[in-house]
Amino acid sequence: MTKPVILTGDRTTGPLHIGHYAGSLKTRLERQDSHEQFLLLADTQALTDNAHDPDKVRRSVLEVALDYLAVGIDPAKSTICLQSHLPALAELSMLYLNFVTVARLERNPTIKDEIRARGFGRDIPAGFLCYPAAQAADITGFRATVVPVGEDQAPLIEQTNEIVRRINAVAGQSVLPEARAVIPKAGRLPGIDGKAKMSKSGGNAIALSASPDQIAAAVRAMFTDPGHLRVSDPGRVEGNVVFTYLDAFDEDHTGVAALKAQYQRGGLGDEVIKRRLDGVLQALIGPIRARRAELARDPGHVLDVIRQGTEMARARTQDTHRAVVDALGLFRL
Amino acid sequence: MTKPVILTGDRTTGPLHIGHYAGSLKTRLERQDSHEQFLLLADTQALTDNAHDPDKVRRSVLEVALDYLAVGIDPAKSTICLQSHLPALAELSMLYLNFVTVARLERNPTIKDEIRARGFGRDIPAGFLCYPAAQAADITGFRATVVPVGEDQAPLIEQTNEIVRRINAVAGQSVLPEARAVIPKAGRLPGIDGKAKMSKSGGNAIALSASPDQIAAAVRAMFTDPGHLRVSDPGRVEGNVVFTYLDAFDEDHTGVAALKAQYQRGGLGDEVIKRRLDGVLQALIGPIRARRAELARDPGHVLDVIRQGTEMARARTQDTHRAVVDALGLFRL
Repeated sequence: MTKPVILTGDRTTGPLHIGHYAGSLKTRLERQDSHEQFLLLADTQALTDNAHDPDKVRRSVLEVALDYLAVGIDPAKSTICLQSHLPALAELSMLYLNFVTVARLERNPTIKDEIRARGFGRDIPAGFLCYPAAQAADITGFRATVVPVGEDQAPLIEQTNEIVRRINAVAGQSVLPEARAVIPKAGRLPGIDGKAKMSKSGGNAIALSASPDQIAAAVRAMFTDPGHLRVSDPGRVEGNVVFTYLDAFDEDHTGVAALKAQYQRGGLGDEVIKRRLDGVLQALIGPIRARRAELARDPGHVLDVIRQGTEMARARTQDTHRAVVDALGLFRL
Repeated sequence: MTKPVILTGDRTTGPLHIGHYAGSLKTRLERQDSHEQFLLLADTQALTDNAHDPDKVRRSVLEVALDYLAVGIDPAKSTICLQSHLPALAELSMLYLNFVTVARLERNPTIKDEIRARGFGRDIPAGFLCYPAAQAADITGFRATVVPVGEDQAPLIEQTNEIVRRINAVAGQSVLPEARAVIPKAGRLPGIDGKAKMSKSGGNAIALSASPDQIAAAVRAMFTDPGHLRVSDPGRVEGNVVFTYLDAFDEDHTGVAALKAQYQRGGLGDEVIKRRLDGVLQALIGPIRARRAELARDPGHVLDVIRQGTEMARARTQDTHRAVVDALGLFRL
């Protein structure tokens, strides 16, 4: 039996953080054997809202690839590839734009939210409005049927499937498979300040390359329960970032449950739970940081990994492009 | 001195007609020696409003190429190439979409008019709204500085230059040249029914491959002056399609001027001027039709012409794409 094909990846806008680890990298590690997995270094998509700063997008390519390898992504099992070097994806994107209306893109809830979040106002780059079609190209280009996405991004997969159905209808055959969104149970990890989204630009993230001091400082600054003034006071566990992170990263679930109970009763200081979390995060990040530093000493090797993966991905995406062109009966020289 | 680079071409939505000949093909023939000329078989752009009928777009590729060769485009002087087989154009298009806002595209007068003319309503294909960015990719991909366009399309060149200036600004260097619209003095040839635009779909065109009978029938059906009932009546020359075509195709300008004077005074029947136009058009189209029929017997040769031109164009457009990527400082594997 062939393995299901999974497409995942990250926009190259900065090094990854523990939010990425909890939300996606961990699952990717688990799926390396059971799935045919493609990890897309999405530098082209990163440009859709970073065209003014191509430098950041370039620099981040190697950073993200380093993060992948450092957490244990194995290039022999998973294919790491670079979006900008897969011209068939641009070709499919341009084609798909003809199979979706402007009104439909504007109605996409994910795009609506993101336009608001980015404060584009009327100055929405066309590339940004159109990125769902590009994402449809990514997903279908690899013939992926499983796409892990955050809950807020599920409408993008619906958009992809609409395009797929339209192409298949015009082609009169099922040339492209539909894809299924897989939404992680874990949910999105909040930033250390308790804000909904951890992000490098938000200054509320802990990078996978964070130093011991950076980790310690982040834990010290972490949002807990502002009403929990004295150790003896009862404290809140919901919205308390330290407990959210312990839930995500501490494997001793019974121990964490006991701490939560004690914290809610009163008699447990923030310092104790923060010390525990610091230990957990140091143990998680320490080995990643060490592997990352070692890999960073040999960028040629990392480049080779990207090159080889991109070569494989190029063949795959070109095959798909050709199949779509032929199914639609377009001209082939 | 290097020759100026000119980009021109046609959407592959059907064989070309004498409107194309008067409006652009004739000028292209004249510029074969003085310019480095690229003729783009624009099948990708044709899909932006023909995604439901890819068959028509495919079939028309060879038709348009045959028309080019039949009128005398010389592949040794001009490069005939196929848009869908130039992936660098898709890559540049996707990149440029990040340098233009949705609002700007919606404000483009050409796009506004064309959206109205096509009756898209709210269902504008995203690819159609975005085609000015794709056209900017075409123009800059070839580093064209001269672009012949109809008067109504001049805003598209302005749009191209805006993107060029934005890219150059972010790159901090002049990596792309601006282009200049060249608007033909002749103006657009009306259809045989007197409607503003000759088009195959409008049923008011005379194809470059028209048979003698088709030419004769078209001239017979041609709109003249509905008020010119008897030969002795004075007739109108303005808006009289027969005279418009005589102006465009009859090289005996003095003769045409004399006929016009007589027609306006009265005493000249439609039959006479139509007979003259029929002779002119038969003489124009006859040799084109003959060459076209001969070329059509060897489609392998036509394919070779397109293949070789596309190969040259691929190298040129890839060079440009690489130059832009490097100037912007994007990642290069």
